[in-house]
Amino acid sequence: MRRIDRIEPFRVMQLLERARELEAQGRSIVHMEIGEPDFSSPPAAADAARALLDSGDGSFYTPSTGIPELRSAIARWYGSEYGLTISPERVLVTPGASGGFLALYLALVESGERVLLPDPGYPCQRHFVRLAGGDPVSVPVGPGSRYHLTAEHVAVHGKNGVRAVVVTSPGNPTGTVCPADHLRRLATACRDKGAVLISDEIYHGLTYGVDAPCALSVDPEAVVVNGFSKRWAMTGWRVGWLILPEPLIDPVTRVLQNIFIAPTTLSQHAALAALGADTVVAQMRAAYAERRAFLLTELPKLGFRIPATPDGAFYIYADAGRFTDDAQRFCQTLLEAAGVAITPGADFGTHQADRHVRFSYATSLEQLREGVARLGRYLAE
Amino acid sequence: MRRIDRIEPFRVMQLLERARELEAQGRSIVHMEIGEPDFSSPPAAADAARALLDSGDGSFYTPSTGIPELRSAIARWYGSEYGLTISPERVLVTPGASGGFLALYLALVESGERVLLPDPGYPCQRHFVRLAGGDPVSVPVGPGSRYHLTAEHVAVHGKNGVRAVVVTSPGNPTGTVCPADHLRRLATACRDKGAVLISDEIYHGLTYGVDAPCALSVDPEAVVVNGFSKRWAMTGWRVGWLILPEPLIDPVTRVLQNIFIAPTTLSQHAALAALGADTVVAQMRAAYAERRAFLLTELPKLGFRIPATPDGAFYIYADAGRFTDDAQRFCQTLLEAAGVAITPGADFGTHQADRHVRFSYATSLEQLREGVARLGRYLAE
Repeated sequence: MRRIDRIEPFRVMQLLERARELEAQGRSIVHMEIGEPDFSSPPAAADAARALLDSGDGSFYTPSTGIPELRSAIARWYGSEYGLTISPERVLVTPGASGGFLALYLALVESGERVLLPDPGYPCQRHFVRLAGGDPVSVPVGPGSRYHLTAEHVAVHGKNGVRAVVVTSPGNPTGTVCPADHLRRLATACRDKGAVLISDEIYHGLTYGVDAPCALSVDPEAVVVNGFSKRWAMTGWRVGWLILPEPLIDPVTRVLQNIFIAPTTLSQHAALAALGADTVVAQMRAAYAERRAFLLTELPKLGFRIPATPDGAFYIYADAGRFTDDAQRFCQTLLEAAGVAITPGADFGTHQADRHVRFSYATSLEQLREGVARLGRYLAE
Repeated sequence: MRRIDRIEPFRVMQLLERARELEAQGRSIVHMEIGEPDFSSPPAAADAARALLDSGDGSFYTPSTGIPELRSAIARWYGSEYGLTISPERVLVTPGASGGFLALYLALVESGERVLLPDPGYPCQRHFVRLAGGDPVSVPVGPGSRYHLTAEHVAVHGKNGVRAVVVTSPGNPTGTVCPADHLRRLATACRDKGAVLISDEIYHGLTYGVDAPCALSVDPEAVVVNGFSKRWAMTGWRVGWLILPEPLIDPVTRVLQNIFIAPTTLSQHAALAALGADTVVAQMRAAYAERRAFLLTELPKLGFRIPATPDGAFYIYADAGRFTDDAQRFCQTLLEAAGVAITPGADFGTHQADRHVRFSYATSLEQLREGVARLGRYLAE
């Protein structure tokens, strides 16, 4: 089988396409499938973009690793956000967190090298590893470890060598935070196996009642992937970043130079301005928190079981086993019959995927109320 | 050797860094090394970006393959520009032409598969192929074939199988256009070997007295890579596109979905507006033409031989054999002693790289005059 044949499309995309068809036919659909903030980017981002457009300086390439002002500002932000000292040289600005992952895996992973990933988990991770020629090892995780890989997983699956281990905290699709002591044990296990700990922190700052610890606070050699898309609601701008240990800076820089030349200039200046938009971010967080509380109350009443209460992101991963053992068909049916779009577990792996679904609350409370009402009516039939 | 260790940095970057150091010390440097238009993007691009910022709709992802309006507009542009009928489904918008190349190679090339590239040629090409796990085969080319691969090259080097063959026309570093009959024979040779013809057309529209034929006019199955960076002076916006034959649309789309999610939203709308900015493009072309004529007159007087007169791009590839058999040292010396930055041949391959240099005229005629005067004084010493 050719590598490309192992790169699956997102199932949620097909669902979204069908939802758009139904909408074009005049049907109303409640969108609880989309993993993108429904908020506009902070006004400061647009203001910065306008200023750069007026100056005419947005036309040109920036350095491959980003404008120095943004690298410095992100480095300083690690001080204010986590109390960590990070030098700007370790900050590489990338075209979205996706661009960061891609460059990282291309620099890090050699043909056939193994990367441990949680199942369920963000589906692009295994595709990044495959495209880089590596061997993604999807390890079943459950509510017992709050859906994170553990030191024991690394010990067992690292027997035949492991190049990297991925933790996403808060997780997608599960929203669960990986506590500091858990992260610390994971980092120790990685060190024992000579593996790099890759910490996907794209949902940091979108937590409700608990902070997600930065992997760098327990392991200075960890690789951190983050970006402006989620916390700052800037998906369309495509700006992310990597924090790298010193030995990886040069290899990843060479990859970035070659494959991207540079991230979008205007977007980098917009991101720099957004970094200080704490008030706007707090407002979005408060809205998410209210929506989360609503769903955590209502979904169990409908019959969905929530095996591990999510701490963050804008997702709830629910066991729909009371209704189905074919979650993909279940989601299609909910879309067609109830006008509610949610994501089937199969988008996140294979482990118990047939009985799980992901609810996203990146839509208004009003829409969520309507969605829950529709589900209630349909599931009671 | 690990794959990453075979990804070289751009030598021109080190030269540029040293040039910046000298400038910081108060030295004046004439920049004839940079491969980026010195013009600002068309005003229509900034206007479209402003309009989108005002509407607030720039915050969100677009479809992975680009906004439908831009795909349609590019498809129509193939009609007005080349008289070709291209359906919008075959147009995939990418984060720069670089993003297009990367997604293409990741979808197309399997571990160890061979891709034929001209030497000298754009250095990232071989790095894209390597990062995708493929085997870039750099084939020496010279002025006899106007620095393009030929049907004979494909026959000889394709004996052990070849997945793809690359033509860049106008070329970088050579500026030479590949004529239609040459392209046609190349396409036939590719078909004979079951290889995909990949046509890098990023410098189309920047030709002076001759048009560069689109590969699709001789081979409907060719892959075309293009973008807004050069002709429309939009490097900083990072928008490119691919025109794909039907069987490649789905695989490349899956790669794009996974590795980029989508190109920058604001940039796509800016690019859409720029597509109609023919007057601005014509003004830039006229300025490049004047600069080219100046250098084609002056460089031979200085003792540089121009083995094949360039038709396009903003480069002149010159034989500096009268002065050096170590072009890299020669370029360093010119920078330090004469205050003129040019690019050594080694950035483009190994074939006769030690006696060749690339002059870029992506800088003002005034600067070029100063550069030539400095070179004249230094080389006469």
